[in-house]
Amino acid sequence: MTDLADVLATVRDRVDPDPEERARLAAVVDRLTERVREALAELPVDARVLQVGSTARGTWLAGDRDIDLFVSFPTDLDRERLEQYGLEVGHAALPEGHEEYAEHPYVKGEFEGFEVDLVPCYDVESAAGIRSAVDRTPFHNAYLRDRLTDDLAADARLFKAFLKGVGAYGSDLKTRGFSGYLTELLVLEYGGFEAVVEAAADWHPPVRLDPESHGETEFDDPLVVVDPTDPNRNVAAVLSAENVARLQHYARELLERPRLELFEPREPTALSQTGVREHFDRRETAPVALVFDAPDVVDDQLYPQLRRSLDGVGSELERRGFAAVRSATFAADRAVLFLELAAAELPAVERHEGPPIHVRDHAEGFFEAYEDDEEVYGPFLDGDRYVVERERDYASAVEFLESDAVFDVALGAHVERVMERDGYEVLAGKAVAELATEFGEQFARYFDPRP
Amino acid sequence: MTDLADVLATVRDRVDPDPEERARLAAVVDRLTERVREALAELPVDARVLQVGSTARGTWLAGDRDIDLFVSFPTDLDRERLEQYGLEVGHAALPEGHEEYAEHPYVKGEFEGFEVDLVPCYDVESAAGIRSAVDRTPFHNAYLRDRLTDDLAADARLFKAFLKGVGAYGSDLKTRGFSGYLTELLVLEYGGFEAVVEAAADWHPPVRLDPESHGETEFDDPLVVVDPTDPNRNVAAVLSAENVARLQHYARELLERPRLELFEPREPTALSQTGVREHFDRRETAPVALVFDAPDVVDDQLYPQLRRSLDGVGSELERRGFAAVRSATFAADRAVLFLELAAAELPAVERHEGPPIHVRDHAEGFFEAYEDDEEVYGPFLDGDRYVVERERDYASAVEFLESDAVFDVALGAHVERVMERDGYEVLAGKAVAELATEFGEQFARYFDPRP
Repeated sequence: MTDLADVLATVRDRVDPDPEERARLAAVVDRLTERVREALAELPVDARVLQVGSTARGTWLAGDRDIDLFVSFPTDLDRERLEQYGLEVGHAALPEGHEEYAEHPYVKGEFEGFEVDLVPCYDVESAAGIRSAVDRTPFHNAYLRDRLTDDLAADARLFKAFLKGVGAYGSDLKTRGFSGYLTELLVLEYGGFEAVVEAAADWHPPVRLDPESHGETEFDDPLVVVDPTDPNRNVAAVLSAENVARLQHYARELLERPRLELFEPREPTALSQTGVREHFDRRETAPVALVFDAPDVVDDQLYPQLRRSLDGVGSELERRGFAAVRSATFAADRAVLFLELAAAELPAVERHEGPPIHVRDHAEGFFEAYEDDEEVYGPFLDGDRYVVERERDYASAVEFLESDAVFDVALGAHVERVMERDGYEVLAGKAVAELATEFGEQFARYFDPRP
Repeated sequence: MTDLADVLATVRDRVDPDPEERARLAAVVDRLTERVREALAELPVDARVLQVGSTARGTWLAGDRDIDLFVSFPTDLDRERLEQYGLEVGHAALPEGHEEYAEHPYVKGEFEGFEVDLVPCYDVESAAGIRSAVDRTPFHNAYLRDRLTDDLAADARLFKAFLKGVGAYGSDLKTRGFSGYLTELLVLEYGGFEAVVEAAADWHPPVRLDPESHGETEFDDPLVVVDPTDPNRNVAAVLSAENVARLQHYARELLERPRLELFEPREPTALSQTGVREHFDRRETAPVALVFDAPDVVDDQLYPQLRRSLDGVGSELERRGFAAVRSATFAADRAVLFLELAAAELPAVERHEGPPIHVRDHAEGFFEAYEDDEEVYGPFLDGDRYVVERERDYASAVEFLESDAVFDVALGAHVERVMERDGYEVLAGKAVAELATEFGEQFARYFDPRP
């Protein structure tokens, strides 16, 4: 039995940046800021350069090499000009950089071994007056910087390391986990890492925290942390119920059986085709998969679309009698909607209930519609209703998936476009295991699922 | 298009007994009554002889050859003596007769070509004071005899013929249809056959009728006809919702497309084994059947028990993932619980949901119960809950039916006894068609179901 204090001491050793790393980072940020200021001097506008993010607040994990610099332009600049100036400054400061796109385009590039994001924003007066989400970041940064003591910053690092270890860190829409800002706010609110963990272990969602006691809005989320800089925003809006539960599960694990591995992300060994086939054999399910080229969009668009598509296909299959034991979506160069069905073939007939006899108009309409239909069994009575057994549209899940009817379900827009334009492949049974060559690691997680 | 009046005239012709039949019946009843009186004269007790039933009220269908004579003993006679005297009189009047058992034993036998029931009862003062259900019959008889005019009696015959034609006549527990008494009360209440049919076509169950406006009890039945001789009894208690719906359906048919065949019971041609197999092929279902010797009990016990057993087996199969498209029970020398399943084989694993994470005690208990179990997949998170995929107890419906677990479901007591004592056979797939040699007619009705 390891002691919690020992485990945390070891993690602190790993994640606390040493003085040399801090000094080096500070020097790099200074040099970079200077380059940006020089580039700004060429422009007919005044702008401030702000360092934001975890490296600005001392909450980065040792070895992280991300620098976020925001260039804050006056609010009377029009948006087009802001984007143009932002990119000009970015390319001047980071000549090797490339453009990316969040709320507006910005430049990302390497500088002296660090990954730099150089993002233009508006210098608004308060977070309530923002023009785009990035304008909020400086307010978040200022709020935390004023309140995080060195001890609290150290505990924020611990909490981040823990959330990374258990797979709940990151507010991207693939993960739907805890953002850096949320992580630090929780440490601030509860007063330290252990306090957060003890509280989370006992949470009864929905949990609502409001550090500035100024919240004005009800939110329908399992965890609500009212943004200290904006009373109408839930900082945890993106967080899934599953990641709240994940934190709760591992918080209890940490308290009951403290161990280092909880701070170490799991990296499962990819399953081979044979490995996947062995699981199918053992589970005796009827696997099917829809495979298509991954739409060329950012992950924050891709994963929500894949999940929506999987939901759409899964519910329509279930409505048609093909219930899934479990399902998942994978993405790499190709994307996969994977469902393990209980049965891939069903009877040719299905029960179709009509109205109760006493609803005379409907009942007569139903009876007349089917009474001379040679294709159906019935109409007959079951209790007080008419029932027929009619031919199923699709007695085979694969036939359904290969048909145009699959486009009638709610697919993600880009997923639908790619499937329509470039086609898609339907795999069934053991053939699904072929996907292991591209998705071996995803299959490994699927067949060794943990909290 | 045939006219309703023409159809009814033809049916009247068929079912109205002619004067010769009436005279012959009256004479036979007189002679039989005399024999009963003679037998009674030998006994140290006074008793009345009453003719009851449809032949007593002129509501029998031409050709029916049932005579019901009740022997009404004084209420101070003890029950043992009543039974003894009843049987003595019965055997004296019907020397070829045999004993049957309803509420108490009675003698049934042939007399001059008629089927005679000779039933002892108590001469109670009112229907509220009855000692057994048979004591009520004389009151029913008197009530109707006083009110049924010749025209109403003729309409009661029409209604009976109609209910027989559509398969809804008979208050036995196999049919759960309309009793003779209920049929006649409805004609009396609505004022004639056509009035009943028009009303029934528009019924919105629950329908409550109370001819004597003296009802004191709420009943949870689709049709309630408060017994004119007993304010606490629903004459239609045995009637199933399906037979109410059946009357409604065929009432509309008769009004919209009057035709003689509605008065002619359907007698389907038995299906051969090949015929049954063809239906299985077309339907692509997974048929299974439990076959055992029919318990040696009267039909009024047998059919409720078979239905209860089928319900028990069907719901347990469904709970285990084996849903049925349809099911039925058949009885002859052997009895059958027959289910057409959507699938007879399921995956080896099944999803098993644990508690939500926030219910800490239960959640921890669930997690600990499974975390070291090599046989399960998980525990993992699905939303805010733990889930495992564990091995199904029965991945095959046949394995379940062949196992002792089948005795854990709610079977009828006699069914369970026979299955345990003498064993039972499980048939699956095409082999079920072998039952056509014994149950060809039942299969014919099953595969050509009508209202």
